[in-house]
Amino acid sequence: MQLYSFFFSSTSYRVRIALALKGLNYQYHAVNLRAGEQRSSAYRELNPSGSVPLLVTDEGVAISQSLAIIDYLDAIQPASRLIPRDPIARARVLEVASLIGCDIHPVNNLRVLGYLQKNLNVTDTQKSTWYQHWVEQGMEALEALLHRQGHGSYCFGDEPTLADCCLVPQVANALRMGCDLERFELTMAIYRHCLVHPAFMLADPSNQPDYIA
Amino acid sequence: MQLYSFFFSSTSYRVRIALALKGLNYQYHAVNLRAGEQRSSAYRELNPSGSVPLLVTDEGVAISQSLAIIDYLDAIQPASRLIPRDPIARARVLEVASLIGCDIHPVNNLRVLGYLQKNLNVTDTQKSTWYQHWVEQGMEALEALLHRQGHGSYCFGDEPTLADCCLVPQVANALRMGCDLERFELTMAIYRHCLVHPAFMLADPSNQPDYIA
Repeated sequence: MQLYSFFFSSTSYRVRIALALKGLNYQYHAVNLRAGEQRSSAYRELNPSGSVPLLVTDEGVAISQSLAIIDYLDAIQPASRLIPRDPIARARVLEVASLIGCDIHPVNNLRVLGYLQKNLNVTDTQKSTWYQHWVEQGMEALEALLHRQGHGSYCFGDEPTLADCCLVPQVANALRMGCDLERFELTMAIYRHCLVHPAFMLADPSNQPDYIA
Repeated sequence: MQLYSFFFSSTSYRVRIALALKGLNYQYHAVNLRAGEQRSSAYRELNPSGSVPLLVTDEGVAISQSLAIIDYLDAIQPASRLIPRDPIARARVLEVASLIGCDIHPVNNLRVLGYLQKNLNVTDTQKSTWYQHWVEQGMEALEALLHRQGHGSYCFGDEPTLADCCLVPQVANALRMGCDLERFELTMAIYRHCLVHPAFMLADPSNQPDYIA
């Protein structure tokens, strides 16, 4: 399999964690979002959305969107299951993945922050306030959901699921942007527990071939 | 089952379509987002995210996030399957659902447009340009994906899937906001084909008990 990824992209990070948890090998293709490589015609030919991550299967099928990719990986490699089979258990995992993937991440990604600066001329302070606003609102909901429904040392139980694949990159991103997340105690405990898992370490931005400090 | 919904919310609309396609009965609870009812402590007790839709199962289990809810409905009622079982076929459906659910909808929903106006003092023109920017960027990707991978009279085949449950509310929302979408010919053909399906008609905002013209 081949993965088009950017070390810094938190949606790519989710997929890298899933691949590592399942022990799947892949060829890494760096797409430098900062240099705008995702907008090149060569890349758009492969992925019309111009987004990372993109997985190309051994059969040459291209799949974009991190949640679709992880669902696919779970279908072809059921070992280390990331989305449980039981209807309620999977709803819990997908609920957390969606909360992060739809409510928190999209409003704070690179293209949106870029638009705020370039098209709406917001100041650095306004941009940072925007970022923190959506992180805090989302993290409050996440912490409440985990308190109510979570159990075990990961989000749901003692093995990582798709929820953890989404939680770690989101927390890492927010910490890098200077958010203070210590009051989200359960979220942070799960984050720290994940960080020492070998698969999460392997998937870390700093361990990618295109990493720049 | 009970559904907490707002007639105008496109994520609620997705779930109403899924429920109608599966012929599932439910009790409708209106949550008036314009009046801020989603922020009341009574509602937050039920759903810490303060978002609609929320499904409460017959067993009293509350599930938020439209994509998690529809996955759950597909698990408990496999008739009129909305997410195919085949790994590649489901990746295609989830890819389109994620493109709409993560890349288009979240940056243009009510809370984000409200923040732009209240916190960043953008003008009506700037707000409308913002809205159209993300819709056009997303619709271009959607149209390209459908051209490349879609088939049949709906997004994927001759029966509606989760992809159609997401496409219709997004197109309806964009049309209401004054976007010209005619150049997205395939997307619009699918939209119009869905609109005459009885389940899509039943789920339409104008057919909800809380509808206000």
